Amino acid sequence: MCPPGCFHSICENATRRGLLKAGFTLGLGAAAAAALPVGKAALAAPTSFSETVDLSHALFEGFPTFSGEKWFTVENIVNFAKDKVNLNRWTLVEHSGTHMDAPIHFSADGMSADMIPISDLIVPAAVINISARAAENADTALTPDDIKAWEARNGRLPDGCCVIMNSGWHKLVGDAKFAGRDAEGKNHTPGFHIETVQMLIAERNVKGIGVDTLSLDTGLNSGGAFPVHYEWLGSGRWGVEAVANLDAIPESGAQLFLGIPKVKGATGGPTRVIALL
Amino acid sequence: MCPPGCFHSICENATRRGLLKAGFTLGLGAAAAAALPVGKAALAAPTSFSETVDLSHALFEGFPTFSGEKWFTVENIVNFAKDKVNLNRWTLVEHSGTHMDAPIHFSADGMSADMIPISDLIVPAAVINISARAAENADTALTPDDIKAWEARNGRLPDGCCVIMNSGWHKLVGDAKFAGRDAEGKNHTPGFHIETVQMLIAERNVKGIGVDTLSLDTGLNSGGAFPVHYEWLGSGRWGVEAVANLDAIPESGAQLFLGIPKVKGATGGPTRVIALL
Repeated sequence: MCPPGCFHSICENATRRGLLKAGFTLGLGAAAAAALPVGKAALAAPTSFSETVDLSHALFEGFPTFSGEKWFTVENIVNFAKDKVNLNRWTLVEHSGTHMDAPIHFSADGMSADMIPISDLIVPAAVINISARAAENADTALTPDDIKAWEARNGRLPDGCCVIMNSGWHKLVGDAKFAGRDAEGKNHTPGFHIETVQMLIAERNVKGIGVDTLSLDTGLNSGGAFPVHYEWLGSGRWGVEAVANLDAIPESGAQLFLGIPKVKGATGGPTRVIALL
Repeated sequence: MCPPGCFHSICENATRRGLLKAGFTLGLGAAAAAALPVGKAALAAPTSFSETVDLSHALFEGFPTFSGEKWFTVENIVNFAKDKVNLNRWTLVEHSGTHMDAPIHFSADGMSADMIPISDLIVPAAVINISARAAENADTALTPDDIKAWEARNGRLPDGCCVIMNSGWHKLVGDAKFAGRDAEGKNHTPGFHIETVQMLIAERNVKGIGVDTLSLDTGLNSGGAFPVHYEWLGSGRWGVEAVANLDAIPESGAQLFLGIPKVKGATGGPTRVIALL
C-alpha cells in the first residue's frame, strides 16, 4: 500500500491493480475477498432501502459535452413501420450524458470500466451543496472547508463513499451555462479543488467523487491542466459526471447505485445512477 | 386496464402508456404515485441486502450477436501515450452484450428505454433452471410447467418480478453454441415458450423476463416469427438478454438491479445487471 499522503499515481495504480488481481477490493478484508468468486462482493453491513431516485439525465443527440463537439448520435437501422422491429445504432464517445470516468481515462494503466469492482458500484453518497456560492461564481470550487462543514453536520465521511458536488448545475442542461463556454472557448463551471482531492486521498477512505457538471475539475482548468482528473483518477479512483436530480436526495444517508456498462478497456461509459433511500 | 387474458398489444400499450403519463407504475397505488416527483419510486416494502453479484458479461469487439454481424466496435480517439488522456468512441447496436429490450423494440409505440420507470429497475428475480434439459436439446423452451414447478418449491411468483431462464448458456460465451447458428444460419438456443409468456401476462404480475442466451425466443424462431418478443414486448413489458453468472444466485430471494443507460428513444441498451442478496 502507498503511505498516507502519497499522491504518485504510478505507485497507487500499481498497488491497486495488484490487489485487484488478488481479488481484494476496498472495504473488504483480504481473507473474505479470497473466499469470494470474481464478481461477488460482501458489504460491510446489510443495507436497507425503501425508495429509489433516478439521478440520471436522459441522453439525446445534442446533449451538452465538455468539448462542445457532438459526442452522441443515433441511427435507426431497423424500423417497425417497414420491418416490424425497431433497432438503433449509437455512435458514442464514452463520456456522454450522465457517465463515469474510469481511472484509465487520465492515467497510463489505471483500471478500465470493466475492472472497477462491483463493491465500488453501490456506495454511500455524501452530497455537498455549494449551489448558493456557484450561483454567484461559476468558477467556484468545492474546498476542504466544504468537506469539514459537511462532516460537522453529518459526522466523518463514511468509508468507501462517493463525495458528490451539488452545484445546482444539474438543473441547467437546457441552458448555455451548463457547458459554460465563454467567448474564448474556456469553460466556466464549478468543480473540485485540487486540495480537496488531495485531502480525500490522504486523510479519508473515499472511492469516488461526483459532480453535476461536465467535469470533475473547475471549468477554468479546461486549458489542459485538469489537476483533479490527474490526481484523482491517477490514484486509481473513479469519478461520475453530469449527475442529475441531486436536490431529491439528502446530503447524508443515501446509497448510490452506479450502473456502468461492463465494456472491456472502456475509459468510462454512460451510467444509470440511482439513489437508494 | 386490459381484461385478464387480453394479449392485444395495442390495447395493453395504450393502457400502460396512459398510466405512465399519469405517473402510475406497477405495484404503486395511484394516490402514492401522484405524490412522488418524476424519477422517484417507493417500494412496497423495505429491501435489505448484504451481498452483490455481477450478472453482466464483459462486452468486447466480437461479442457474439444474434444476427452473427459485428454489433460493437471501439475506436481509440485520444491516447495517453500521445495526449496524456485516454478516450474511446463506441459504435454499438443497442442489443449488444448483456442488455435490455425495451417494449418499443418489438412494438410500434411501446416504451423506449428512457421511459421504463425506475420502479422496474430494481425487482425480485425468479430464476428457473432448465440447464439439464437444454444440455440435451438446445431448442428446448421454458414452459408453463417450469413456472409451476418453481412455484411448487418457492411459492407464487413475487409481484413485479423478473422471471429469468438459466439454460446454462451463460457459460458458453466463448463457444459457437452460444449463438448456436447451424449450417443453414438458423439459431439453436433455448428460450421462453409462447404459452409461458401468455400465462405470465394473463395470470401473474411480472414486469420482465430474462434469458442467458441472445434471444427471449427459442432460436428456431429466428426465421422471423419471434412470437415471444412480439407478445411480451408488445404487452408493454421488457426483457433482458445475455444475463451472466446465473449459477451464483439463488432461484428465489435475489433482487435484480438493471442499470440501463437512459437514452431517449432507445429500443434497449447495454445494461449492468447486478443481483442484491
